[in-house]
Amino acid sequence: MTKPAPGGAGGGGGVAEARQVLVVFSPSGKRGSFPPGTTVLEAARRLAVDLDSVCGGRGICGRCQITVAEGDFAKYGITSARSHLSPASDEETGYALKKNMGEGRRLGCQSRILGDVVVDVPEESQVHRQVVRKRAEAREIVIDPTITLHYVEVAEADMEQPSGDLRRLEEAMAGQCGPDGLIADRRVIREMQGALRDDGWKVTVGLSGPDRIVAVWPGYHRTLLGIAYDLGSTTIAAHLCDLTSGEVLASDGMMNPQIRFGEDLMSRVSYAMINPGGDRELTRVVRQALNTLATQVALDAGVGTDDIISVTLVGNPVMHHLLLGLDPVPLGSAPFALAVDRALELPASDLDLVLRDGARAYILPCIAGHVGADTAAVVLSEAPHLRPEMTLIIDVGTNAEIVLGNRDRLLACSSPTGPAFEGAQISAGQRAAPGAIERVRIDRQTLQPRFKIIGCDSWSDEPGFEAAVEATGITGICGSGIIEVIAEMFLSGIITADGVITAAKNDRIAPDEHSGGRTFSYLLHAGDPDIRIYQTDVRAIQLAKGALHAGARLLMERLRVDTLDRIILAGAFGSHIDVKYAMILGMIPDCPLDRVQSAGNAAGTGARIALLNNAARAEIESLVRRIEKIETAVEPEFQNHFVAAMAFPHKTHPYPNLAKVVALPAGEAAVPRPGRRRRRNH
Amino acid sequence: MTKPAPGGAGGGGGVAEARQVLVVFSPSGKRGSFPPGTTVLEAARRLAVDLDSVCGGRGICGRCQITVAEGDFAKYGITSARSHLSPASDEETGYALKKNMGEGRRLGCQSRILGDVVVDVPEESQVHRQVVRKRAEAREIVIDPTITLHYVEVAEADMEQPSGDLRRLEEAMAGQCGPDGLIADRRVIREMQGALRDDGWKVTVGLSGPDRIVAVWPGYHRTLLGIAYDLGSTTIAAHLCDLTSGEVLASDGMMNPQIRFGEDLMSRVSYAMINPGGDRELTRVVRQALNTLATQVALDAGVGTDDIISVTLVGNPVMHHLLLGLDPVPLGSAPFALAVDRALELPASDLDLVLRDGARAYILPCIAGHVGADTAAVVLSEAPHLRPEMTLIIDVGTNAEIVLGNRDRLLACSSPTGPAFEGAQISAGQRAAPGAIERVRIDRQTLQPRFKIIGCDSWSDEPGFEAAVEATGITGICGSGIIEVIAEMFLSGIITADGVITAAKNDRIAPDEHSGGRTFSYLLHAGDPDIRIYQTDVRAIQLAKGALHAGARLLMERLRVDTLDRIILAGAFGSHIDVKYAMILGMIPDCPLDRVQSAGNAAGTGARIALLNNAARAEIESLVRRIEKIETAVEPEFQNHFVAAMAFPHKTHPYPNLAKVVALPAGEAAVPRPGRRRRRNH
Repeated sequence: MTKPAPGGAGGGGGVAEARQVLVVFSPSGKRGSFPPGTTVLEAARRLAVDLDSVCGGRGICGRCQITVAEGDFAKYGITSARSHLSPASDEETGYALKKNMGEGRRLGCQSRILGDVVVDVPEESQVHRQVVRKRAEAREIVIDPTITLHYVEVAEADMEQPSGDLRRLEEAMAGQCGPDGLIADRRVIREMQGALRDDGWKVTVGLSGPDRIVAVWPGYHRTLLGIAYDLGSTTIAAHLCDLTSGEVLASDGMMNPQIRFGEDLMSRVSYAMINPGGDRELTRVVRQALNTLATQVALDAGVGTDDIISVTLVGNPVMHHLLLGLDPVPLGSAPFALAVDRALELPASDLDLVLRDGARAYILPCIAGHVGADTAAVVLSEAPHLRPEMTLIIDVGTNAEIVLGNRDRLLACSSPTGPAFEGAQISAGQRAAPGAIERVRIDRQTLQPRFKIIGCDSWSDEPGFEAAVEATGITGICGSGIIEVIAEMFLSGIITADGVITAAKNDRIAPDEHSGGRTFSYLLHAGDPDIRIYQTDVRAIQLAKGALHAGARLLMERLRVDTLDRIILAGAFGSHIDVKYAMILGMIPDCPLDRVQSAGNAAGTGARIALLNNAARAEIESLVRRIEKIETAVEPEFQNHFVAAMAFPHKTHPYPNLAKVVALPAGEAAVPRPGRRRRRNH
Repeated sequence: MTKPAPGGAGGGGGVAEARQVLVVFSPSGKRGSFPPGTTVLEAARRLAVDLDSVCGGRGICGRCQITVAEGDFAKYGITSARSHLSPASDEETGYALKKNMGEGRRLGCQSRILGDVVVDVPEESQVHRQVVRKRAEAREIVIDPTITLHYVEVAEADMEQPSGDLRRLEEAMAGQCGPDGLIADRRVIREMQGALRDDGWKVTVGLSGPDRIVAVWPGYHRTLLGIAYDLGSTTIAAHLCDLTSGEVLASDGMMNPQIRFGEDLMSRVSYAMINPGGDRELTRVVRQALNTLATQVALDAGVGTDDIISVTLVGNPVMHHLLLGLDPVPLGSAPFALAVDRALELPASDLDLVLRDGARAYILPCIAGHVGADTAAVVLSEAPHLRPEMTLIIDVGTNAEIVLGNRDRLLACSSPTGPAFEGAQISAGQRAAPGAIERVRIDRQTLQPRFKIIGCDSWSDEPGFEAAVEATGITGICGSGIIEVIAEMFLSGIITADGVITAAKNDRIAPDEHSGGRTFSYLLHAGDPDIRIYQTDVRAIQLAKGALHAGARLLMERLRVDTLDRIILAGAFGSHIDVKYAMILGMIPDCPLDRVQSAGNAAGTGARIALLNNAARAEIESLVRRIEKIETAVEPEFQNHFVAAMAFPHKTHPYPNLAKVVALPAGEAAVPRPGRRRRRNH
């Protein structure tokens, strides 16, 4: 490897070239030759090396810290040495003393390159740095700021040059930061008036995009805060983030106050339809909740809400429309038309959010009338479009949003599961809360159940359970409990693959009086009242899971795939159910069990990505346009898939991966096994 | 003149060209050849002929009406004939029946050109038509809409294509109106939802610029309304205009409610400075006043405030800042820094205006810290930059705004006249109101005065005066009265050119006790209390007029001009004073008296121009940048001009044009004329 000929050494040309020095940046490997005396920051900018700077090279912000790589870089043909940078300037020495700069660190803006050198850019000096995530399989969040900071010194107002403050700020920015023709709304102009006068016409400007001023702080300012909001129908979550480090400073959640207007979304749409101005009321309370959460997370983190400059919001289409003050009624019936599907970027004050005056709000795009910005956020978080594996993403709520595909193609649909999985439409069903049965096991021989309730770590046949129950009672059965009890009933032969509760001779099984004794129920818990699983409960789950599976199957058929590499269960529901039981019921197609993951709050993570990474916004906006939307309601095939998917686990599709772990009753209908047959024959 | 060879007649080329027909548009004279069957509207668009159309050529709006010019157009080589257009289509016959279309009128979009033809575009079919103004010398207002109407038929929402309403509207617009990528704020999106569903997915879209949707009306809509506001320190005026015809539908005015926080601007700035939140209160009341006026003019015109889609606003810098909610305090002391000088275009709701949801507000640019958007509007209205004559524009208030120049160069300054011209600082001074003396004549021999008061047409020595006085009393002296009495005192020799009240032996003249008898006063009216002109009053007027004249003189010196072609007195003051007396006092430089004009409410006219003409906005924005701002406070020459301008009419500059009409006392000091000398010598 030969050292690139420094400038001046090259013969041939008639004109002697000026001497040039070589600089190589690590870890990027970018390199170039420059006239001696070029600053490291300048060289980094020319080579598009990711080296931060807020103050524009004035030795104030300390963001551009670098070190000189020691050792022999034979591969570059240079021996890097600290002496190849100019000695520390006064500004640099001053900064180092004041801010306790690390050993060997230099300010890139103050260090002039005198000889060939290899420059290390430590991670904290990079603008685009990665945030460490806990869950390894999700995408890393890379910081790509939507708002950038620029420290400028503005010419003081002067009678001889009676231009406005904004114009003088603009001139200062043009000199130091490039953009010309800034946009500022009147509240930011007001803020600028004060900031300019507070610290001797030195200010830090927050720019959104190349030209929109969103904040002006007096003097040098380095903090940027934002909130990622996840607006669920039931709960609303807020994550306060440091936009520079990506760190989550505080998180909080609360019940969606719209619940008092209707538990599920369609009741709220009805409320809006029936009550004049009802939708405005729904809009008002949700915005109020966002402000309450902002105050809470700001308090938690010890910051002011007026430090918050950026928010992102995700939610299903109805929440999306209510947040924006749009009419949700068209979403309540076919053709389920969204008012607007694209992403929206607007002043946060337009949503009545009481944050910093110039704060911006970004709302992720909706995919279709039933597949909202929350699903877009899940896609952004789980990134199936970046991977070769065929991935099925399911977000279960009152509707299930289903996304299928990989980097080649993505399909999405919504399937009308109804609220059975959430405990509604189930006789003893209830919301997940202390006292609700959440886990169930049934003895294959005796058909005796054991269970766990929320709020108690012991099983019902373990010591300590009775004491715990005294506090909460056994109040009902929640979503995950229903899935487990029906799956266990199926595995125990109490229910056939067709979903019929059999008339087995057992003290737990009794004819249902309401059906005139034609159907039976299973006693899960004898108490006041009894908790029983009726035939109607099984049917409700069959309808729900049939719709869910049919949606997934429809997409698989469209993509001509029969097996899946990965299934992701998003949302709170996905976090609580045991995926094995979900598969036993046939809620989801077959897949290796260790490839079925709960993504937790993937929508919230997606909102956080859009908060921290500007490129991700463009990514999800273009991706959403590419996603193929399938409307299950108008697909003739959907009905066939639905009927076939009513059976446990599925009428026609086998579950080879599940069968490796669980002994499934054979055949289409449950084949009674010896023990049970014996009892039946009694 | 030969007829242009129709297509196909040209030999030479191997390929036979298709036949073409010639169309000539009148009055523009634009012409071109087209394939037979081309519609007149299409031909007009291709030739950039100003022919209106809202419905995009669907025979609905009737805006594209034309007639075929009859007769022999030998100069074009064609004989125009009605039969050279296709017969009326069903749409056209339907429209003609319904709307009673004029004799010989055709719809341009439905008429296909079959043979050579001359097409007349009547004025009402032109987008850019002139509005007839009353005052001939002011510029004509040409309509160049800031908001355009587009009738479109949108694809209905469809489950198979689940795109949002906005995207489908955009697609419909792209087909018919060109622009792609529309901007709409959330309230307009909401409005669009309803409008699309109200009339079968047919809507009229209001676009501001090429891409911002500001309104969506169901079906076909043709009305656009706007308000031009003139925010004075004392009064606020509103003019409701039809944006399509330019017609003023209603005008109204009210006192500026900020007056209760301070009569003059600087008191209001002080109020804001002393009272925390005081400026927000000032902002609130002025915005409230704008809403009150909007309601009043809408009521007068029989329209709703939610029909109002556009407003323009002008005002001095303090009013400008208070309107925008900016801090006015920096305008209260040197260096009088504006927060923002450029023009602002923003949602009207940002100014708390309760108009149509998507309504836009345009605020004209400010010129300098003392020379506001009102002066910019006066310049736009009086258009000195379009004329060769050297024009001096003066707008007198507490400060005088002065603009000088012509099409080559424009200069502006503000001069600190103080409020003397408005009656403040004058012992008997008062606001113009019934009972105030507004006209004065003094007998050159007897020094006896006669005067008129506001609210009475008779002079004080005429019959009927006494009766009128009973109603109002004689309460004081207003601005125009002060100017006249001092000018008459000067002409009568009571005051010297230096402004000294002489000790003439006359019952009207008496020593002033407060000065220990060293100065004298003139009794204008003996009553309760007496109305007297004291030496201090003369000094106050000298200071005010000295500042005004010095400002004008400074600009003249800068431009190296010694004479003026035209003087325009803007504002209410300009409407009330007698220009001859203004010149006798030397408030303004010499000029032929018939070239001194009152421009009336030129600021309001400028606001109206900016409301109706989009190009005028660009014009004033670029012009304001070009205007050279002179700051009198830092000009060393200003003081010299000021001192010289204290004398009546001026110490050094002669008044040849004035002298033709008025016998001015000769010399620098008043030379007593025979009659007076006699009295003095008594």
